[in-house]
Amino acid sequence: MAVTQSRKRAAILAIGDELLSGRTRDANIHYLSGWLTERGVALAEARIVPDVLDEIVEALNALRAKYDYVFTSGGIGPTHDDITVDAIAAAFGVKVIEHPKAVAMINAWYDAKGEEVTPARLRMARTPEGVELIDNPVSGAPGVKLENVFVMAGVPRIFQGMLNAVEGAIESGAPVHSRAVTARNLPESRLADQLLEVQSAHAGVSIGSYPIDGDEKGVTVIARADDPAIADAAIDAVVNAMRALGFEPERSDRKHRS
Amino acid sequence: MAVTQSRKRAAILAIGDELLSGRTRDANIHYLSGWLTERGVALAEARIVPDVLDEIVEALNALRAKYDYVFTSGGIGPTHDDITVDAIAAAFGVKVIEHPKAVAMINAWYDAKGEEVTPARLRMARTPEGVELIDNPVSGAPGVKLENVFVMAGVPRIFQGMLNAVEGAIESGAPVHSRAVTARNLPESRLADQLLEVQSAHAGVSIGSYPIDGDEKGVTVIARADDPAIADAAIDAVVNAMRALGFEPERSDRKHRS
Repeated sequence: MAVTQSRKRAAILAIGDELLSGRTRDANIHYLSGWLTERGVALAEARIVPDVLDEIVEALNALRAKYDYVFTSGGIGPTHDDITVDAIAAAFGVKVIEHPKAVAMINAWYDAKGEEVTPARLRMARTPEGVELIDNPVSGAPGVKLENVFVMAGVPRIFQGMLNAVEGAIESGAPVHSRAVTARNLPESRLADQLLEVQSAHAGVSIGSYPIDGDEKGVTVIARADDPAIADAAIDAVVNAMRALGFEPERSDRKHRS
Repeated sequence: MAVTQSRKRAAILAIGDELLSGRTRDANIHYLSGWLTERGVALAEARIVPDVLDEIVEALNALRAKYDYVFTSGGIGPTHDDITVDAIAAAFGVKVIEHPKAVAMINAWYDAKGEEVTPARLRMARTPEGVELIDNPVSGAPGVKLENVFVMAGVPRIFQGMLNAVEGAIESGAPVHSRAVTARNLPESRLADQLLEVQSAHAGVSIGSYPIDGDEKGVTVIARADDPAIADAAIDAVVNAMRALGFEPERSDRKHRS
């Protein structure tokens, strides 16, 4: 990638046996990738690990040392298999406490619904020491922020709600300007030399080539650049190359977020 | 997880800027997770990295040292942004060669379609030195196997075709026996104490609890064990606990692969 040097870089650590067993297809990585791109932040890596404390600790410590922001998803619910809070505390070398403000939030949430605050529900008030809380507009129990790590729920609707709640803590960057064009039925391999030429001729652009379900059904080319004029010039050159091969390009910028 | 000790462990490294930018939602991690589970192999970790050589090398070397099998997806096509072959070679410290058998496969594929074998198409015959080839029943250009690493295409249909082609190289294990039950409208937090009891009372089982879109709409509980009798006993105890709370459980084993 030729772009993104000046942008903040983020990673996501998705936690849960069910994401690795075939039961559940993760949705948060993809959602976060689009959300960050819209804010000029680069999602630079994603990892999925099971509900195993040492694995979570190792991955989290690697990611939080390397990136500006780390988002975790999953494992912060009320049941015995929710061990993310303990893992985060172990990774930072801090204690797990019952967070007074989290207790208050959970009490208020269940009081408003006329339900009892059981020990299991209070388990969701356990946090690593020294955190800020992340509002949960969907189901009450908060996420936590500790240094550059945002610990959030795995249920996509809750993850997305928490993401909105932390927007102010993320330093957004200049948007990447992205242009896309598709030529149906043009094999990617017939356009390869031309794409290399376009890439070489346009400094500051990153040209990506994405075959449609293999090399036969067509190709989508994306030009990404900090400078919109450079993205425009590069994609125009790709359009001309497609036409020279006898294929009619379809511009599709709006369908692609980057 | 209390299970899987005797099984082979695998990881997947999905490669591609488009998987981290919001453009494309990865499909291969989820597909592989189910495929491996059906074969008694544990998918233990997944990572997504961009098309950046050093990042691919670092992730691959970490994963291939730690797991029995590593599958990569993406970046083996004919265009300039396909750098996975170079990264694999760099990770293993071997040269990139033009593989004679891969050349023959690509020649045969395009000859059969009456199309020219261009330099761009021959680029897909570049491999690290010392590999075995992985048949590509979908689009001709092969993947490669080097030691415990399987390098495969990113296009899901091709990835799946290559996976079928390598099945014989994977040592399958005993299946994990999985049982599932759902109670609609039962908040997970009301069942937490009972699940902990079931987990504690049944050695050799792993009980996972998965809220349906938050804590309000219900919960699915999965019991996984090497011994099917233990999985049955544990899920029966969960069913009883759900009924004791006044909710009618629905067994849903067939919908869940683990």
